[in-house]
Amino acid sequence: MKFTIQRDQFVQSVQHVSKAISSRTTIPVLTGIKIEASYDGVTLTGSDSDISIESFIPKEIDDQELVTIEQEGSIVLNAKFFAEIVKKLPEDTLEIMVTDQFLTRLTSGDSVFNLNGLDPAEYPRLPEIEEDNVFKMPKDLLKSLIRQTAFAVSTAETRPILTGIHWAIDDGILTCTATDSHRLAMRHAKVETNSEELAFSNVVIPGKSLSELSKIIDDTDELIDIIVTDNQILFKSTNLLFFSRLLDGNYPATKNMIPNHSKTSVKLESKYLLAAIERGLLLSREGKNNVVNVKTIENKELEITSVTPEVGKVTEKVHTLDYSGEELRISFNGKNLIDALKVIESTEITIDFTGAMSPFVMKPADRDHMLHLFSPVRTY
Amino acid sequence: MKFTIQRDQFVQSVQHVSKAISSRTTIPVLTGIKIEASYDGVTLTGSDSDISIESFIPKEIDDQELVTIEQEGSIVLNAKFFAEIVKKLPEDTLEIMVTDQFLTRLTSGDSVFNLNGLDPAEYPRLPEIEEDNVFKMPKDLLKSLIRQTAFAVSTAETRPILTGIHWAIDDGILTCTATDSHRLAMRHAKVETNSEELAFSNVVIPGKSLSELSKIIDDTDELIDIIVTDNQILFKSTNLLFFSRLLDGNYPATKNMIPNHSKTSVKLESKYLLAAIERGLLLSREGKNNVVNVKTIENKELEITSVTPEVGKVTEKVHTLDYSGEELRISFNGKNLIDALKVIESTEITIDFTGAMSPFVMKPADRDHMLHLFSPVRTY
Repeated sequence: MKFTIQRDQFVQSVQHVSKAISSRTTIPVLTGIKIEASYDGVTLTGSDSDISIESFIPKEIDDQELVTIEQEGSIVLNAKFFAEIVKKLPEDTLEIMVTDQFLTRLTSGDSVFNLNGLDPAEYPRLPEIEEDNVFKMPKDLLKSLIRQTAFAVSTAETRPILTGIHWAIDDGILTCTATDSHRLAMRHAKVETNSEELAFSNVVIPGKSLSELSKIIDDTDELIDIIVTDNQILFKSTNLLFFSRLLDGNYPATKNMIPNHSKTSVKLESKYLLAAIERGLLLSREGKNNVVNVKTIENKELEITSVTPEVGKVTEKVHTLDYSGEELRISFNGKNLIDALKVIESTEITIDFTGAMSPFVMKPADRDHMLHLFSPVRTY
Repeated sequence: MKFTIQRDQFVQSVQHVSKAISSRTTIPVLTGIKIEASYDGVTLTGSDSDISIESFIPKEIDDQELVTIEQEGSIVLNAKFFAEIVKKLPEDTLEIMVTDQFLTRLTSGDSVFNLNGLDPAEYPRLPEIEEDNVFKMPKDLLKSLIRQTAFAVSTAETRPILTGIHWAIDDGILTCTATDSHRLAMRHAKVETNSEELAFSNVVIPGKSLSELSKIIDDTDELIDIIVTDNQILFKSTNLLFFSRLLDGNYPATKNMIPNHSKTSVKLESKYLLAAIERGLLLSREGKNNVVNVKTIENKELEITSVTPEVGKVTEKVHTLDYSGEELRISFNGKNLIDALKVIESTEITIDFTGAMSPFVMKPADRDHMLHLFSPVRTY
């Protein structure tokens, strides 16, 4: 194998596929990036067996030559060292050449790295996926869907299915749901399907996979193809393939959890609520329970309090823009509400309470594409 | 105690004095910030018994009222919580009032914090320092002196004296020296003294103290007063006092360590040498020994190599701007050289070697105010 390549392009591809590589893998060849040179271009692959990422650098783009292939071939090089090295090379191009067995020489200007490679024949093959059921959405929408749900997945290993995000398509509408059983985030979006009959309901993608995907797709309205099989999902964009394993098991029936009535309804400015709860948590952080108490008071105001006996007490007042229904006293995990407020892009939100002991729902006031559900905390 | 104060001013003072406060102190009152209100203004104090910082906010500056004092008094409030709270308050002003015993109420708009304070009578007094021997220098020069020496102090507790920076004044010239016994950084500067006889030679200031000081003084040419006593040093700027304990013990006689001849002398562009050594260390990082090998080769070039058997080998060539003397092969800790190169502001540097087994000296090529000394590493 021997080729010369533009450094910037190569660095970006190396960074992309590195996102799939875990330093804790027990399979030595997976600590490396597979580099494969053919006369069409160079393909890089990284994988931790849950996620696999393939990035292709074509020989040329728009008549600009990116790669000069002198000899086809492949090699696996330690990802951690390699990613650092290519970033710091002195020239705009670099040459990679497998010299002897798996020994690889990387040259850029007056810098020469001789690296011990691994046998590419040992590298696992990527899954082969039939592209029957494809749907599409703009990349920036996909990034939003991930950002607005992934924060709510469970980080505990006790119920592995809750570490994933549930995706379902029905009637051209994708619904993404994440919950750790104390809070739930749900987001709808219209997607493009190649068949009106495309529908599925029990696809659970590891939250970590989607978070990594989100880091490597750019924030444009270019469409990305998505293909779901029994145990894999593939995201396919120009010169990039992103595979993730799906989680096994049944996702809880979250629809039944969402109350469809309200006893106390308030409308608030997001930023004032956010700031008040952030201050409310300043003293409670030490105790790590993050509980804040909310009480309706006169003049259509909410009083937010939090007490940490050794440290002190904080009291905040927040004006509501709208208020209807019963008086209320409720306690909940303020940190969970903050997480949700940070992904709601609307300036105003509504909260519907159904009593002190029941879950409550927060939504943007101006749109219906998103919903956040929170369990109250019993404080006595 | 009761006063109202401008939040921005107060936040900055709280941040300054917080730099002295350690969460690991065993003296409870030192986890707090002492706040003292008098009719002149508000004084904040933080201390970890090594460093003490006092920040004063006067009643008014340039006819702008900063503080409205209603009642004099003092209190000690937990620094960690307090610094977070004042940063996040909603309004431009805040009111602080000691209500009952040490209970303190902090109010800003619709936010009210009731905090448990500590008895200010338990707070230690700051040292009293006679201001006989004062010298002065611009703040930005002081910051440079610290930045260009503090990195070289020892972080090991085995020889405590080496965790400090040695300061000596002779003939109006301040010499700052730091060494961890493998490398040494020295910097001279002219200072203003109020007496021609001002001279001292065994003042050793903890590196940590100077690093903290550097964070709170601004990068201007305003003068700062410096007063040295037997066991304390005081830095005195407008509305700010910074005290540090001095280290006990004798600092090594570093002057004798510096070779005054040269067997091989090279002149190089700093940035190329820096980049080449950084790449040289990319593979050796795993081993943590950071050793690079330098060899003079033909065409007035240096060859820099580093080998990590499991990973590979890197070879770099660096052109010299000037080269004289014997051929040379030497090995040294590349990380130490990088640290020094990063604080040398000149684009060109000279290195004088005195053989493979002797310490060598690096200096800016255009100025004589700074010197870095490095021990070689034996590699066989």
